[in-house]
Amino acid sequence: MTISPFAPKSFPRLEPVAGFDMAVAETGVRYKDRSDLWVLRGIPGTQIAGVFTKSLMPGAPVDWSRRALLSPDNPDKPRILVVNSGNANVFTGSAGAQATELTAKVAEKIFDTEQKSVMLASTGVIGEILDVEKIVRSLPNMVQTMDVNLWEEAANAIATTDTYPKGATASCEIHGVPVRINGIAKGSGMIAPDMATMLGFIATDAKIGQSALQTILSGFTQLTFNAITVDSDTSTSDTVLLAASGAADHPIISDAHDSALHDFKNALLNVMLGLAHQIIKDGEGASKFISIDVKGAVSDESARTIAMSIGNSPLVKTAIAGEDANWGRIVMAIGKSGEPADPEKLSVSIGPHLLAENGQLAETYKEEHGATYMKRDYIELSIDIGLGQGSYTAWTCDLTHRYIVINADYRS
Amino acid sequence: MTISPFAPKSFPRLEPVAGFDMAVAETGVRYKDRSDLWVLRGIPGTQIAGVFTKSLMPGAPVDWSRRALLSPDNPDKPRILVVNSGNANVFTGSAGAQATELTAKVAEKIFDTEQKSVMLASTGVIGEILDVEKIVRSLPNMVQTMDVNLWEEAANAIATTDTYPKGATASCEIHGVPVRINGIAKGSGMIAPDMATMLGFIATDAKIGQSALQTILSGFTQLTFNAITVDSDTSTSDTVLLAASGAADHPIISDAHDSALHDFKNALLNVMLGLAHQIIKDGEGASKFISIDVKGAVSDESARTIAMSIGNSPLVKTAIAGEDANWGRIVMAIGKSGEPADPEKLSVSIGPHLLAENGQLAETYKEEHGATYMKRDYIELSIDIGLGQGSYTAWTCDLTHRYIVINADYRS
Repeated sequence: MTISPFAPKSFPRLEPVAGFDMAVAETGVRYKDRSDLWVLRGIPGTQIAGVFTKSLMPGAPVDWSRRALLSPDNPDKPRILVVNSGNANVFTGSAGAQATELTAKVAEKIFDTEQKSVMLASTGVIGEILDVEKIVRSLPNMVQTMDVNLWEEAANAIATTDTYPKGATASCEIHGVPVRINGIAKGSGMIAPDMATMLGFIATDAKIGQSALQTILSGFTQLTFNAITVDSDTSTSDTVLLAASGAADHPIISDAHDSALHDFKNALLNVMLGLAHQIIKDGEGASKFISIDVKGAVSDESARTIAMSIGNSPLVKTAIAGEDANWGRIVMAIGKSGEPADPEKLSVSIGPHLLAENGQLAETYKEEHGATYMKRDYIELSIDIGLGQGSYTAWTCDLTHRYIVINADYRS
Repeated sequence: MTISPFAPKSFPRLEPVAGFDMAVAETGVRYKDRSDLWVLRGIPGTQIAGVFTKSLMPGAPVDWSRRALLSPDNPDKPRILVVNSGNANVFTGSAGAQATELTAKVAEKIFDTEQKSVMLASTGVIGEILDVEKIVRSLPNMVQTMDVNLWEEAANAIATTDTYPKGATASCEIHGVPVRINGIAKGSGMIAPDMATMLGFIATDAKIGQSALQTILSGFTQLTFNAITVDSDTSTSDTVLLAASGAADHPIISDAHDSALHDFKNALLNVMLGLAHQIIKDGEGASKFISIDVKGAVSDESARTIAMSIGNSPLVKTAIAGEDANWGRIVMAIGKSGEPADPEKLSVSIGPHLLAENGQLAETYKEEHGATYMKRDYIELSIDIGLGQGSYTAWTCDLTHRYIVINADYRS
């Protein structure tokens, strides 16, 4: 496996988050000689917020967790998370549903909690029956090895085609009380904008009510995990969870707009953006990290559609892989987005260089500017639609030979 | 240039169509030592129907032709067509509009017709100013070399990254009178479903009113050129024109639903489908020709959205390139389409093999069935959504290394 050129030298140092411990295990469901199962446990009173794939073919674990989290009639507060990698338990019929139920039942006994307190997530191959026995057999040992200091091991356990484990951390204060936020994520293909990315898990010791937590998570997901695309393909397993143990000793916060959360929100946004960017930097075959800033659109939603039309265009992405400042393809992608735009009012820049304005090539632009700029690893595209105040920033990677290698050979 | 493995041994024999003659020329706008300009002339009374890109960044020739054809206040019946390749004259500002006007003006004098009788189409690089002088200089010689027997030369003149010229022909009868239909097309990248393909031109000697002709062309475009996708990227230059000289000696037909057109419609659909399939077979980097049959959707439009979601999925297309019967990715693509679907009611087949039904892998399916089938050049995917009567068939090709090679290096 070729490691992404954007891989960090080492995993960031993630200190323990008060109120959480965890364990990892090797079940052998698909992979040999590596951990593929992670359990995260929050103390009683832990609050969890979640966002899930909008796919109409969601995996059985997504169905389970969505019900556990969002059913108004679930009296059990979710606080245990069981995640396996290698098999996504998607399109596995009644066997898939039985596997999720069995996992939750066994976890219930082992962790002395309620069944609907157990949240599940799976990632990996679609359509193969999950050998759930291998998972439930591993759980009793895990409860013996729970530890507060296993974040890097957890990030490795949830990985599939990832070429490096992804983690981010931040600390902040709420009412003067120090609070920590840790997050891990996985994903490098089947990453698309219609929901969260494949899997992201964030834990904090902040004391925030579930409803406020959900509002904050949903809003920030739109600006982070929903703002990235590797290949326009939306996963059946996308799940992002934010768990707050409430172990921090500040007054509980129930309103998402409480000004005491100012510092916390900045820190959380940084963690989520850090994870989202790490997913793009590990995008299958990525050799360039691309940011797409759109402004001047008729609305933020319009700006998002335009940014994603550019970010999902195979012709734009192959041009950037070829280090070609092919702004014509950017114009094409704006044109096919279906959003209001006018060639005469549009401008397109690459890094500091204005390429196109007033419906044609900018007079100041020289091909060698673009040619030099495109050799960089980090490419910034800036589009001004010139019609309104709507803006959005999306991130993607280029489309290279290695994407084809990875995906033409993934299952075999 | 590597010729597509699907290229026919030779260009089909296209007999003259009564009422049309044509010429080709080498202008040197971009290419050396090959023709890049085509003029088609219909006799006075010729009727033309057209469909154009829905891109909001259309090329100047699209703007010109759309106005000439569709403006209710244009008294000049279009009957001359001037097509150049190598430069699309897109995003070229006022210079682009002036180039179209000048071309039409010069053609007006040379062909002794009205200015708005001249239709234009261009294909090639986006954003470079078209050296229109080279085009208008070539026109006087062309009028001296007009000929009825240059269809293959015309198909070559309009090509860009095409690896073979594309033509199709059919004959039929209207009211017992023999009628001929010839078509040529170009395109192998930036081919996507939101409109016609890049360029397609069809000529017939049938005597059909413009309104009926437009109705027939629009309807059939939805089932042919709009049913193909190479890479999900919609061109700024897409244009399909159907010209009817009326030279055939049958009573004029003004109603698109006239039963006398039964035979003609079959023949026209075959020509359009033949051209659309040839474009997919020359899809950039294509090694597999893929048909996607969707039935049982809640509507035909829903079936189309699902078929296109599959046909545009990079993960489905790379799996097929890798000869992997990865039906999980097909399920993923159905799930992300946003259209009504239910895993429990869905079935997925590849060729004669049922892969998935009742929300899981079909019991009768064996991996070796899929492995053997996927070695074929022609791959048939059949999806039954199991909810209604809606159906649609789309065609695409696989996503291979050669697509990246072609598109990372196109401009440089």
